[in-house]
Amino acid sequence: MTETKILTLAEIEDIAFRALVAAGTSEANARPLAVATASTEADGVASHGLAYIPIYAEHVQCGKVDGQAKPVLSQPRPGVINADAATGFAHSAIDAGFDKLIPLAREQGVAALAIRNSYNCGVLGIHTARLAEAGLMGIGFTNAPASIAPSGGAKPVVGTNPFSIAAPGADGQAEVLIDQSASTIAKSEVMKHAREGKAIPEGWALDADGNPTTDPEVGLKGSMAPSGGYKGVGIALMTEMMAAAMTGATLGTEASPFSGTAGGPPKTGQFFLAIDPGVTSGNEFGARLAALTASIRDQENARLPGDGRKSKRARAQTEGVAVNVATLDRITAIIG
Amino acid sequence: MTETKILTLAEIEDIAFRALVAAGTSEANARPLAVATASTEADGVASHGLAYIPIYAEHVQCGKVDGQAKPVLSQPRPGVINADAATGFAHSAIDAGFDKLIPLAREQGVAALAIRNSYNCGVLGIHTARLAEAGLMGIGFTNAPASIAPSGGAKPVVGTNPFSIAAPGADGQAEVLIDQSASTIAKSEVMKHAREGKAIPEGWALDADGNPTTDPEVGLKGSMAPSGGYKGVGIALMTEMMAAAMTGATLGTEASPFSGTAGGPPKTGQFFLAIDPGVTSGNEFGARLAALTASIRDQENARLPGDGRKSKRARAQTEGVAVNVATLDRITAIIG
Repeated sequence: MTETKILTLAEIEDIAFRALVAAGTSEANARPLAVATASTEADGVASHGLAYIPIYAEHVQCGKVDGQAKPVLSQPRPGVINADAATGFAHSAIDAGFDKLIPLAREQGVAALAIRNSYNCGVLGIHTARLAEAGLMGIGFTNAPASIAPSGGAKPVVGTNPFSIAAPGADGQAEVLIDQSASTIAKSEVMKHAREGKAIPEGWALDADGNPTTDPEVGLKGSMAPSGGYKGVGIALMTEMMAAAMTGATLGTEASPFSGTAGGPPKTGQFFLAIDPGVTSGNEFGARLAALTASIRDQENARLPGDGRKSKRARAQTEGVAVNVATLDRITAIIG
Repeated sequence: MTETKILTLAEIEDIAFRALVAAGTSEANARPLAVATASTEADGVASHGLAYIPIYAEHVQCGKVDGQAKPVLSQPRPGVINADAATGFAHSAIDAGFDKLIPLAREQGVAALAIRNSYNCGVLGIHTARLAEAGLMGIGFTNAPASIAPSGGAKPVVGTNPFSIAAPGADGQAEVLIDQSASTIAKSEVMKHAREGKAIPEGWALDADGNPTTDPEVGLKGSMAPSGGYKGVGIALMTEMMAAAMTGATLGTEASPFSGTAGGPPKTGQFFLAIDPGVTSGNEFGARLAALTASIRDQENARLPGDGRKSKRARAQTEGVAVNVATLDRITAIIG
């Protein structure tokens, strides 16, 4: 059994913040990342929560991300905010961008935020959920180093590139939260099997010639299998076009890896759209969404995307989260 | 062999237009539908081209669509156009909406078009491609009567709901055109197998209890299999939220069928986003998109979504299209 310890969300945010600052991150940049880390732990996505703090700290120290960067914002048209993350954390650029995007979307009906020169934004749905909490339909795209090959080809051209859409509910939370990558399975799962020397199921990854493989090492040198075949490639391409081509960020084919210390800043991108549902639907949105979610929740065992995270978050707010003690020790060592 | 006859695109548009008018469609409504029919034939999507004209004509005559409807447009916020299709053809509402949406997207950087009380819009990518031809990134969603069940459930709650994204190229055409439904296979393929009394491959459809079936009749009474499992459900839900909840259109659970004459107007919806790539990317878009498409086209046998349709269209413009003579005879009979 892995040894765990219960921490409150405030404690998680606090140790994340202190470790990031100790590693050389400015307080302004550490705060949004610490807040997102606590939210990610609350939602039960432990793989992207505190476990990432030592990696973020290392990346600040090796220069893969500039902990002191200040995002630069501009508004080239009434409905568009552009943010240059200046090779800093995505979270700071998203935070500064959302401060403009949210009121703009209410005023314009629809608004966009394009972020370039950025970094891994962690769990994408954490960000789109914030737009939903502001009463807006939030749509997000983020790109990653290439690991999916085009249909008919074998050489990776796009990342596992997730998109997310979060719909606002009557309770001030995301009522539906879809957050899914374009691959059958997360690349981190294949890496985990490689570390543990275990075979992977067929359908997870392909070898360098595009053939199915059960060897995780071979798969990591080949490509990740797209979810649903060519339709998964379509999702990854959509996300690449939105998060990189539409923002002027670096394509997945040219981005440095998110893992390890080599290669300098990845300079990938994020694109967010925020839309006011009351405006586009003539105030019919709430009733329609309620009928749609009821048609799913009314079926025994049927799952509505986002319900799992929401119930975990509610529990975490009162009961805290069980955190891996080995991870805590690594973070405490950074704080010193 | 099916007997065919070569028609020019102008001839296809002309017979589609005359049949629609003969069936009781106003000239203003018949024209955009006839233009889209010719484009659809040019792109090689014969299943949704002239073959649909007799169905459209029947639907005008039975009142499933109002051939004389006039779409009503409004602009509730600077970035949003709403269109009430008034149970008329989607194409007229899209045409009138795009006349406003395209200049608005250039002015605002991003703009949205929400269409309600609408009808099957045919091939979604025909519409998003028009946005790309105007130099904009075009994103579209359209919903359909429910045929996909939620993960863990068995009762359909969302349609096979396609989305489409079309990226503008340097040649004034869509450089990338993604247009894909949320199901493994089109429902029309299952219907075709049912008509022909043939078994369907496992993975296409599920029975009323959510189990795999190879009997097309059983599948049609059950649900369509989502592409890539729960991720396909996510795509269908995204599209349902955008095309129905965000527009105030009818949900797939309540919409009348697109096929047959029963049930009155389906009143489904469409949602389009148009974004100016030069604005969001600081004029980096063209170079980024060219590098992305080259990374795919440079791989032997790799397929870039949209290339197939584009080469067919180029050929159709000079050589015309081979059209099914039985379909032509049905259309000629309507023209009388």
